[in-house]
Amino acid sequence: MASIIMTKHSDSTIALAQELIERPSVTPEDFGCQQLMAERLAKLGFNNETMIFADTTNLWSRKGNAGPVFCFAGHTDVVPAGNLNLWQTPPFEPVIADGMLYGRGAADMKGSLAAMIVATEKFVAAHPDHLGSIAFLITSDEEGPFINGTTRVIDTLEARNEKIDYCIVGEPSSTAQVGDVIKNGRRGSISAELHIHGKQGHVAYPEQVNNPIHLAMPVLAELSQMHWDNGNSYFPATSFQITNISAGTGATNVVPGHLTASFNLRYSTELTAQMIVDKVEALLTQQALDFDIDWVFNGQPFITEPSAFLYSVVQAIETCCQITPELSTSGGTSDGRFIAPTGAQVVELGPCNATIHQVNECVSVKDLILLTDIYYQTLVNALTNQ
Amino acid sequence: MASIIMTKHSDSTIALAQELIERPSVTPEDFGCQQLMAERLAKLGFNNETMIFADTTNLWSRKGNAGPVFCFAGHTDVVPAGNLNLWQTPPFEPVIADGMLYGRGAADMKGSLAAMIVATEKFVAAHPDHLGSIAFLITSDEEGPFINGTTRVIDTLEARNEKIDYCIVGEPSSTAQVGDVIKNGRRGSISAELHIHGKQGHVAYPEQVNNPIHLAMPVLAELSQMHWDNGNSYFPATSFQITNISAGTGATNVVPGHLTASFNLRYSTELTAQMIVDKVEALLTQQALDFDIDWVFNGQPFITEPSAFLYSVVQAIETCCQITPELSTSGGTSDGRFIAPTGAQVVELGPCNATIHQVNECVSVKDLILLTDIYYQTLVNALTNQ
Ligand SMILES: [Zn+2]
Ligand SMILES: [Zn+2]
Repeated sequence: MASIIMTKHSDSTIALAQELIERPSVTPEDFGCQQLMAERLAKLGFNNETMIFADTTNLWSRKGNAGPVFCFAGHTDVVPAGNLNLWQTPPFEPVIADGMLYGRGAADMKGSLAAMIVATEKFVAAHPDHLGSIAFLITSDEEGPFINGTTRVIDTLEARNEKIDYCIVGEPSSTAQVGDVIKNGRRGSISAELHIHGKQGHVAYPEQVNNPIHLAMPVLAELSQMHWDNGNSYFPATSFQITNISAGTGATNVVPGHLTASFNLRYSTELTAQMIVDKVEALLTQQALDFDIDWVFNGQPFITEPSAFLYSVVQAIETCCQITPELSTSGGTSDGRFIAPTGAQVVELGPCNATIHQVNECVSVKDLILLTDIYYQTLVNALTNQ
Repeated sequence: MASIIMTKHSDSTIALAQELIERPSVTPEDFGCQQLMAERLAKLGFNNETMIFADTTNLWSRKGNAGPVFCFAGHTDVVPAGNLNLWQTPPFEPVIADGMLYGRGAADMKGSLAAMIVATEKFVAAHPDHLGSIAFLITSDEEGPFINGTTRVIDTLEARNEKIDYCIVGEPSSTAQVGDVIKNGRRGSISAELHIHGKQGHVAYPEQVNNPIHLAMPVLAELSQMHWDNGNSYFPATSFQITNISAGTGATNVVPGHLTASFNLRYSTELTAQMIVDKVEALLTQQALDFDIDWVFNGQPFITEPSAFLYSVVQAIETCCQITPELSTSGGTSDGRFIAPTGAQVVELGPCNATIHQVNECVSVKDLILLTDIYYQTLVNALTNQ
């Protein structure tokens, strides 16, 4: 490595990102990250509400009472470091080398959080009389079971009729360069664990067994080859994947008594969770299988269709990066799925995601500075009359 | 229980069965059972050869040099007792209650061994000038990996050109009453472990994965529904059973990289192992799967067709039990598969098998006494001119 910098960087965004990375906030720990953010926001006149639900720390911070409400959403928690021997630098010691900031959470998503804070500081300073309100919705449970995080904060806001109009989620949406891809929606996700019951016995007495593997094969084969939809202009076709299958005692002469399979669908707005449940259960019932199935509804699909807000994000990227972002709905789920159902227009915009959740996670220093500019320009486009 | 008898029974067969059951000869242990049998046989003029291969003790005992060679075959080892709390009496303490002899190995197959010895003693006493030779081929590794048992003794006999003409295997062949079923053959058994390779990845990026479960389902569905043959007059149709299947990391959002499935076929003489291998591998290759497969050849099918020897067994049962036995080739494999290929005519005849390998294994006292008579009468039919 050409140079290693461990002192605080002169750029405010990079320096704040370093301070956040130093805090080993593995899910559901926040480790003081939100406190650091809240202090910066308080100086700008934000009202901070820390909402603790079980093991999860959440921050709802808002400046202003008027609409529209522009919200930055994100998470302070990070996935575990993984194999420390594979890290070239300690995961919770932010290191800059060759123009990259290294550390767990650098790209997902402490860099984005720093960019949001610094962009907001600059915006409030330059436009003290901006329109509407600015808010932050930050959780420490995005990478975990997501039970006590964003969804609980949204419930709280809904209960008091507090609405978000525009939302930027700082998830690392970019691929080759910052701003090249933004997510204006996400597919739905639904999982199931299926149990098929048969009758155990010795392989030598096939007339006395009812092999649950044989019972399951035709149905699982049909499901795995099924054409669910063609997607639509916003979404790719729905995808079905069997993720786990297990049956057998380990003995080679025993037919097992039951089979367990789990699967997941990433589905477009052409389908609903209920349509999927009905289709799968009809198939199982039609085969007269003795089964039970547990469904897990991870999130409904959402889409932010072309609008003034979406255009304000696109235009900000065009202004700062001289590129037009691709609108995408691919990839995994994000906390946007909890915010969109309230009627908010949700866009995910963050740095490049090549190294997220991996060892030696890193983000380009230049990209984070550029991301700060994009966030700033989006605020300008959305909350001023310029 | 009406009465519990733990002292030695007045009947020689029952008393010897008790002595054998007292010895906890869990595979591959013999625990002195063969010594006990050898001593009884030595008194009759048998020449005993103990053949120890690795952890297995085998006994080859023979009286006479002439042909035909009539061999009793069996095993002194037993399967483990299992859950001791479920035994009403200690598994290695022979107990007689309500006309049943309880203990591990009572039915499989220490009762048969006792009946063979006592029948032979009576026969040699009554027919000192019988035709041919009488032999015992006893192993302590029938319930185990069967590597160092009967197959090694047969190899030794073959190497010195010593042949068995007639063979009674004492496996518990009967169902409702002793002698109602004898086995004049066994199906072949072949197993395989199949690995199908795909490409692991996150469920949210289906275009980047190659799901081995989806690849496997159509082939496994086809195999599980396949019609292999119709059997023939001696054998039921070939049976295919998938016994184990496993794929997945346990995570619900990861498509695994490979799948493992194991299966077993019990096949008739209409098929050969090679035909089965060719058919399965052609199907896998035709689907262009990336696979590897390990075959285990457990035993070829064998059949003892109607013959003077088979008739001598049937007639003995008719004489002693006033029933005609059903000839069957069903059920698991036995050491008969190692003896039959030498050209021996192999028949399996033993007590009822309802409780074998289970807790509270037991055998009817009356059945064991009757089995002694049947074995005796078979010797008379086969080795005298009566
Ligand atoms: Zn994230
Ligand atoms: Zn046995």
